[in-house]
Amino acid sequence: MTPQAAYDELIKLRKELIVFGSIGSVLGWDQRTYMPAGGSKHRAAQLALVAGMSHEKATHPRIGELLKAVEGSDLLKDPAAAAAVNVREIRREYDREVKLPRALVEELSRTTSEAYDVWVAARKENDFAPFKPWLEKVVKLVREQADCYGWKACRYDALLDGYEPGATTAEITALFGPLQRELTELVAKITHSGKCPPQKILNSEYPVDAQEDFCRETAAALGFDFNSGRLDTTTHPFCSGIGPGDTRLTTRYNPKSFSDAFFGTLHEAGHGIYDQGLDAAHYGTPMGEAVGLGIHESQSRFFENFVGRSRAFWKRMMPRARKFFPRALGRTGLDDLYFAVNDSKPSFIRVESDEATYNLHIILRFEMEQALINGDLKAGDVPGAWNERFRKLLGLKVPDDARGCLQDVHWSGGGIGYFPTYTLGNLYAAQFFHAADRELGGLDEMIAHGDFEPLKKWLNKKIHRQGMRFRSNKLCQEVTGETLSHRFLMDHLNTKFTELYELQ
Amino acid sequence: MTPQAAYDELIKLRKELIVFGSIGSVLGWDQRTYMPAGGSKHRAAQLALVAGMSHEKATHPRIGELLKAVEGSDLLKDPAAAAAVNVREIRREYDREVKLPRALVEELSRTTSEAYDVWVAARKENDFAPFKPWLEKVVKLVREQADCYGWKACRYDALLDGYEPGATTAEITALFGPLQRELTELVAKITHSGKCPPQKILNSEYPVDAQEDFCRETAAALGFDFNSGRLDTTTHPFCSGIGPGDTRLTTRYNPKSFSDAFFGTLHEAGHGIYDQGLDAAHYGTPMGEAVGLGIHESQSRFFENFVGRSRAFWKRMMPRARKFFPRALGRTGLDDLYFAVNDSKPSFIRVESDEATYNLHIILRFEMEQALINGDLKAGDVPGAWNERFRKLLGLKVPDDARGCLQDVHWSGGGIGYFPTYTLGNLYAAQFFHAADRELGGLDEMIAHGDFEPLKKWLNKKIHRQGMRFRSNKLCQEVTGETLSHRFLMDHLNTKFTELYELQ
Repeated sequence: MTPQAAYDELIKLRKELIVFGSIGSVLGWDQRTYMPAGGSKHRAAQLALVAGMSHEKATHPRIGELLKAVEGSDLLKDPAAAAAVNVREIRREYDREVKLPRALVEELSRTTSEAYDVWVAARKENDFAPFKPWLEKVVKLVREQADCYGWKACRYDALLDGYEPGATTAEITALFGPLQRELTELVAKITHSGKCPPQKILNSEYPVDAQEDFCRETAAALGFDFNSGRLDTTTHPFCSGIGPGDTRLTTRYNPKSFSDAFFGTLHEAGHGIYDQGLDAAHYGTPMGEAVGLGIHESQSRFFENFVGRSRAFWKRMMPRARKFFPRALGRTGLDDLYFAVNDSKPSFIRVESDEATYNLHIILRFEMEQALINGDLKAGDVPGAWNERFRKLLGLKVPDDARGCLQDVHWSGGGIGYFPTYTLGNLYAAQFFHAADRELGGLDEMIAHGDFEPLKKWLNKKIHRQGMRFRSNKLCQEVTGETLSHRFLMDHLNTKFTELYELQ
Repeated sequence: MTPQAAYDELIKLRKELIVFGSIGSVLGWDQRTYMPAGGSKHRAAQLALVAGMSHEKATHPRIGELLKAVEGSDLLKDPAAAAAVNVREIRREYDREVKLPRALVEELSRTTSEAYDVWVAARKENDFAPFKPWLEKVVKLVREQADCYGWKACRYDALLDGYEPGATTAEITALFGPLQRELTELVAKITHSGKCPPQKILNSEYPVDAQEDFCRETAAALGFDFNSGRLDTTTHPFCSGIGPGDTRLTTRYNPKSFSDAFFGTLHEAGHGIYDQGLDAAHYGTPMGEAVGLGIHESQSRFFENFVGRSRAFWKRMMPRARKFFPRALGRTGLDDLYFAVNDSKPSFIRVESDEATYNLHIILRFEMEQALINGDLKAGDVPGAWNERFRKLLGLKVPDDARGCLQDVHWSGGGIGYFPTYTLGNLYAAQFFHAADRELGGLDEMIAHGDFEPLKKWLNKKIHRQGMRFRSNKLCQEVTGETLSHRFLMDHLNTKFTELYELQ
């Protein structure tokens, strides 16, 4: 078999695997949007079957043979060309996947699906006790999973790698250290400023129909293509990139609150614009896929915060917003609205927190996950450890576990190692915004004129169409000229909040 | 291997196959309800993959081995018991499926998935030309499919068998002949009666929201369980039984017409009540599956026409209908409404036609399909042939293809051989209604009191829970004491329309 023939067959198998996996995405989307309650047991059977068959396809020995036949050949001599990138990533994926015994995959799937139900009830009842044994089981299995993957410096590295290929705990710790120090300083200054935005503007009359129309119009204006996408309603918002021409956002509406649905939609639209910007010609191969969760999150935070919470954006959107919500915003001035959407203060729930305090929520989770995975923290000690650390980081006494360690879905699903990518996303977003502003010249001016097209094109070209050509950090260097630094995010936050809160 | 062990493994494989196939149902439902337009190409790839993999699972040699190991054993000595029924049907299915090459299965899936989109646009634009090459492709592939299955008397038999196991063209022709003659006589009498129902009652103000609520309420009252089902909006209404606990209906709303959505919903609810009535304990095996499309259709027509267009039903529903549609029906009397929902006259659109003329639409399609499949009719000649035959059967000149040969979805999907099951359904429905009335005693009285539970229980027990225990015709004999005859339907129509139109 020639290397070319091996490569072609490898790509064919990989495409089939991805198309197959995308069927699971449709099932997942449907489960969370329109599936009738009675269908949940049957849906679990469908999903388990797809998962099992996916694993079988992904670990097929033929993939190993084909990889061997193409590796080392001239076909891959340019490491940044599609063939080399695809083979490199398929090798990485295959090596990871074959290390997992099927029994462990199945046990993880079974355990996390039950743990999820227990978590839902535990959060609702605000009672950690019933969730405790399940968290223990999940942590035990995830530790086993990490050991199957293998690791050098620390076990947590093996998990991180699944969400942010190539990232290490040491590297992230080095970034998060100074970030935490500077954020803590900023948050303290804000708290002591004594200033408070007119928050009640955002908790007024926001009819759901008008919110939906406004969300849709804004997402489209930013560049989300509704001919190839949708926006639906769910309890937990998400974006599902099902495949070329089919990217779906969800959000949730509260008739008494503006921010939930609107910024949620901008966030998911950012993810969606990334998915829609991937190169469809490379669909099914790493060259047509997102580089990692950190970069993915950077695109959502880019539109949610760097565009959507800027003064320029509201200069543009204010007349439309007044038209959609005449009762709530008819007499509101731009400065008041801009301040209100940038209200910053320590709070309990991560997904409701502001641009500055958000990252402290992530740092807490990053630390706790390491302790759980290294074995320094027992599942039963999570609530105590959470509350103690929360007080130190955010200065608040956690009133109960529903507003503490039970708030997030991730651990019940075995998603340990995922959280740090949220803050990485914020850091990347800041650095990308800085680069785009420099390269496009006056991004604020463009945003204020609703001229989003050049920005989308820039993101498409620099990030989306790159697929997995580079690892995240290398991509950052290519796009911005520097490796990832906390400096850009802190500059952005310091500038914005110094002005808004009139800090010294 | 003992026969029992072979049987157990066979059932395990069959269940997996059905769960896998049900994933295709979710994809199909989504395609027709919420999928964005841009997703159609990717959806075609997903469906083709599922079709190919389903075919591979369905034709796995292990199934053949297991069948051989269990067939002829004592385990199957009672031919009406679950084991014998399951083995008989799995054998039939397997023998059919192994005759199809995977390439043909995938090509059919891909082609029909694209042809569907072309058909939607062609019908919208009222232009047959772009659809013509796709119809050609589909007919060519379906003819190939029929030849793979093999046939004796005529090629069309091979296709019929896929929708109505065991049915033959000759048998159906023998039923449809006298039916056509008697229907033509009845339709002529109605036309010459000079009477006309107050049709404008139904083409008045019917706000879509109220229609949706009324449809939902009525479907629930008839026995459709919304905890295990849904009702959505589509261009071409259908019912999708995804699996236990998940049965989905669709309908379409016209704010100026009552009948479309309402009777469409009753129709699909009849299908849905059948699917929800299947024995979930037998899910994944023929004992838990519908016996054929004719019987399936009988359940939909049962609720749409025999219940929904009866005087007894409107005696019950009139107060609710007036409440939902005060402007349209506030001053309407029962007799007028009952006559209006039974307006009978030749018209162009099958799904909008009345109980009497409907079957003439089917007979036309039955004839044309045979000609297409035998090779006597070319795809390009379909519009001309359709219009000519339509004039002879229904006495009307077809004004355009949107109201002619482009109106139905079936051919774009390769569903040739499907249409005759609609009229079989009408015949079965009439015969079942007659039997239920006799056994339950005064069905009209029950309907007039909104007491639908005994009827649903009767259908559940006599038909739904029987699964594929008997072939359709045998089931009809078991339930009604006689083989299928056109007499019951004609008696019903003659009685109803003689009274309404004061025929001689």
